[in-house]
Amino acid sequence: MTTPEHMQQTVDRYLAAINAGDMDAVIALYADNASVEDPAGTEPKRGADILQFYKNAFAGGATVALTGPVRLSAKAAAFPFRAEITRTEGPTIIVEVIDIFEFDDDGKVARMTAYFGPANITVKEA
Amino acid sequence: MTTPEHMQQTVDRYLAAINAGDMDAVIALYADNASVEDPAGTEPKRGADILQFYKNAFAGGATVALTGPVRLSAKAAAFPFRAEITRTEGPTIIVEVIDIFEFDDDGKVARMTAYFGPANITVKEA
Repeated sequence: MTTPEHMQQTVDRYLAAINAGDMDAVIALYADNASVEDPAGTEPKRGADILQFYKNAFAGGATVALTGPVRLSAKAAAFPFRAEITRTEGPTIIVEVIDIFEFDDDGKVARMTAYFGPANITVKEA
Repeated sequence: MTTPEHMQQTVDRYLAAINAGDMDAVIALYADNASVEDPAGTEPKRGADILQFYKNAFAGGATVALTGPVRLSAKAAAFPFRAEITRTEGPTIIVEVIDIFEFDDDGKVARMTAYFGPANITVKEA
């Protein structure tokens, strides 16, 4: 199941689901035992905490778009993207992120790691 | 030692060393016990195999350049780059890569993972 085409489609569906505000569609891409380390270096989230994390992170809505090609290795996809996040409080922020999706044999995302930090966050000009 | 500034400088030095063909300068960025998984999904290289790997990979010379900002999380840097690799046999190829550097407490790269695959490799037009 973990063909390059499948991994590319999963990334496309992931970004489309965030843009649509459909966090259940995001979660459907993950394996039941998936872990989400976002940002890298924090305790990985699992189970129901993953859905709650996405709901919180994008509570005000977000626009995400690739800023370069999806890198497709044997069982992983790495992709650079820009997220414009409308927060429920405070100004809209722009975050430059690189996500890694590691896939299981069923083609689900078993592990996600998101790389970014304060240096990658800017406040959107009004 | 693992400040965002240090991690950014390490990435800059890494790319400059490859462009200069100075593989000893590349190796100097790595911890003694580092592992290099390039591409992701292959057996990690260690010790003297890392230097040999770089010498082989860039035997014909290469030009590498960032294609987006370096993402700087707590103890890791993720960066998208394009490598134009002159091979000793066959045409020059262009590879779109995302590298992850994980740093140890001494500010050395303890683990590198390179994400790319056949979908990210193109032959340079003559």
